[in-house]
Amino acid sequence: MKVLVINCGSSSLKYQLIDSEREEVLAKGLCERIGIDGSNIAHQPAGGEKVKEEAAMPDHTAAVKLVISKLTDEKVGVIRSLTEIDAVGHRMVHGGENFSGSVIINEEVIKAIEDCNDLAPLHNPANLIGVRSCQAIMPGVPMVAVFDTAFHQTMPEKAYLYGLPYDYYKKYKIRRYGFHGTSHDFVSKRAAEILGKDRKDLKIIVCHLGNGASVSAVKYGESVDTSMGLTPLEGLIMGTRSGDLDPAIISFLAEKEGMTASQVIDVCNKKSGVLGLSDGYSSDFRDLVQASETGNEQAKHALEAYAYRVGKYIGAYAAAMNGVDVIAFTAGVGENNAEVRAMIGEYIGYLGTNIDAERNKVRGEEIILSDEGSKVVTMVVPTNEELAIARETVRLVK
Amino acid sequence: MKVLVINCGSSSLKYQLIDSEREEVLAKGLCERIGIDGSNIAHQPAGGEKVKEEAAMPDHTAAVKLVISKLTDEKVGVIRSLTEIDAVGHRMVHGGENFSGSVIINEEVIKAIEDCNDLAPLHNPANLIGVRSCQAIMPGVPMVAVFDTAFHQTMPEKAYLYGLPYDYYKKYKIRRYGFHGTSHDFVSKRAAEILGKDRKDLKIIVCHLGNGASVSAVKYGESVDTSMGLTPLEGLIMGTRSGDLDPAIISFLAEKEGMTASQVIDVCNKKSGVLGLSDGYSSDFRDLVQASETGNEQAKHALEAYAYRVGKYIGAYAAAMNGVDVIAFTAGVGENNAEVRAMIGEYIGYLGTNIDAERNKVRGEEIILSDEGSKVVTMVVPTNEELAIARETVRLVK
Repeated sequence: MKVLVINCGSSSLKYQLIDSEREEVLAKGLCERIGIDGSNIAHQPAGGEKVKEEAAMPDHTAAVKLVISKLTDEKVGVIRSLTEIDAVGHRMVHGGENFSGSVIINEEVIKAIEDCNDLAPLHNPANLIGVRSCQAIMPGVPMVAVFDTAFHQTMPEKAYLYGLPYDYYKKYKIRRYGFHGTSHDFVSKRAAEILGKDRKDLKIIVCHLGNGASVSAVKYGESVDTSMGLTPLEGLIMGTRSGDLDPAIISFLAEKEGMTASQVIDVCNKKSGVLGLSDGYSSDFRDLVQASETGNEQAKHALEAYAYRVGKYIGAYAAAMNGVDVIAFTAGVGENNAEVRAMIGEYIGYLGTNIDAERNKVRGEEIILSDEGSKVVTMVVPTNEELAIARETVRLVK
Repeated sequence: MKVLVINCGSSSLKYQLIDSEREEVLAKGLCERIGIDGSNIAHQPAGGEKVKEEAAMPDHTAAVKLVISKLTDEKVGVIRSLTEIDAVGHRMVHGGENFSGSVIINEEVIKAIEDCNDLAPLHNPANLIGVRSCQAIMPGVPMVAVFDTAFHQTMPEKAYLYGLPYDYYKKYKIRRYGFHGTSHDFVSKRAAEILGKDRKDLKIIVCHLGNGASVSAVKYGESVDTSMGLTPLEGLIMGTRSGDLDPAIISFLAEKEGMTASQVIDVCNKKSGVLGLSDGYSSDFRDLVQASETGNEQAKHALEAYAYRVGKYIGAYAAAMNGVDVIAFTAGVGENNAEVRAMIGEYIGYLGTNIDAERNKVRGEEIILSDEGSKVVTMVVPTNEELAIARETVRLVK
């Protein structure tokens, strides 16, 4: 089957066309500035050059049309016609408590996703616009929704309830949902496979360290805790997100700076994290490592605080599961940044895992980092959310 | 020496008169509703009955006068005259970055404490009123300020900086301070003593579990991390405090409930924690254990969430120190609630500590809970903040 995987934002649309039998990407690309002046598309067929061009995209339907025209283009296309697309997999950010797995999209499902809009006001409506646009252009093609939150729906109450009046959970569904679920699921499954074991027998901690970052505790195949919460702000220090804070800081800052609570949260989402800690130097971990190596103390401190927080979450989740067998690093920083992994390694030796400095030089590949005698296996497992969405799509459509 | 220990709130004043040589409490008591109709004092000499009476206390100076009159009273008094009081030790909530230890109070010190008022607007001004009142009534008696935050001033930057724009730290001193420092210091010191070891050789995690609650990581004698932050709201789920939250919940709730950020924080401080989780049942852990044992599911879930959070913090601080030798429980719940300790025990076995069910029956006494073979020693060490303040006072006055 050929599956088109769509990740639709409010003014952007990322896509991959995947051959599900061979699990190969046929083409991929990104539409930006949809509905804004200067909209453009970058398209790349497998093995070919990336072509970027400006093109009018007044709305997402126009963007989907343009994607189809690129995929079927004589020069840069990879299929002859639209009819070769067998199914579409949509990444959905928030499924709330309504979805604990992927589903075939129908009107009822769309309604249930809309019910979660409140919990992800920036993401869910944009994701749904992507669905509607694809439906308009590919009527009759089966579509599947794959939720960032679904894998974490197995969390027990003690992990998902906040210490707030219970009424807020009943009235507004305020609870921990967690995100990056598709990745935590994919990586924990693959980690077990690599070790030749059944995921159902393992306690696995997955560190998804990208620009957005979260840690999860996957016990015997199920997510039992994760660091992101009601929104993707909680937990680790990220590229531009603060992660955990004393909640009282929000009102303290609101008063000091004359801002509303939402404005403070906006700062926490966009100007914080290692960007904020490095005093505005960079949200990119490669920049920070380089700067830190050439004497930028502020960059060094940002990285230290970052690695320390990851270390503490690994420790916390070892306690959550009363033990850990495998620690897996994934996503941009987790797969590629050996320096950051080494810094995290400083905190986890007591668990019985020693990151071998030679092995840790690897970037972007599956590898076991800990040395032979380690009680706990530490490894790198590259994530592939698009492939995971394609697999889910095929599973449901078949 | 005879040391009067004062803990002054906005409308209350707690006191103990301590004989520092014998480390004995001579008398103790509490003035309530100072400046409010119906003010009263409860006074108790050592070995005697508690006497409670209504008495006009228009301000704190009147309250201190009344305390002195009780201490020197013919019937319930324990000293002949005011002059027998050699020194006064004041509990201070917030020393900011100005104080990393106790100090003899002079005008300069008072000024430096006032500079921290912003960080503890409810507590510091009240603490200082207590100082001024004592100075008015006992001029010339040396007074010492003992700070809740001081012990934690050894935390490294990676532990005390939040993932926020660095400017907020420079401008407003927004950082983790931590509280209960006097208790974390006292208990970690005593734990080492009991084990016949030097605190400088140990990695200790102190769980101060009272109605307010915090965990600290004490590495080789110094606090390197603690769960309370800028304010005492962060960290553990407490009696009525939420502890850690996704910061975005503050703006989410403010919008939903039409509240300001400060009003939401007020709910997080006063109506949350196990009180909120138990749907308003109780903030008292004895009530919750009892209710939970007789089938109140909501109470049970509140306790589970509470214990789970403590377990995760123990795990996180084991990572922070790359190991742990001793875990000490203290304060109301930590010393007395065997059920809660047993629940926490479920999460820490992997560290190499097994809480013995028989030993765990003990309430309010120094005891080693873990069995002989345990790699990590788990114990109960009753805290005594007043004695610690008296000791500090004597140390500085001598």
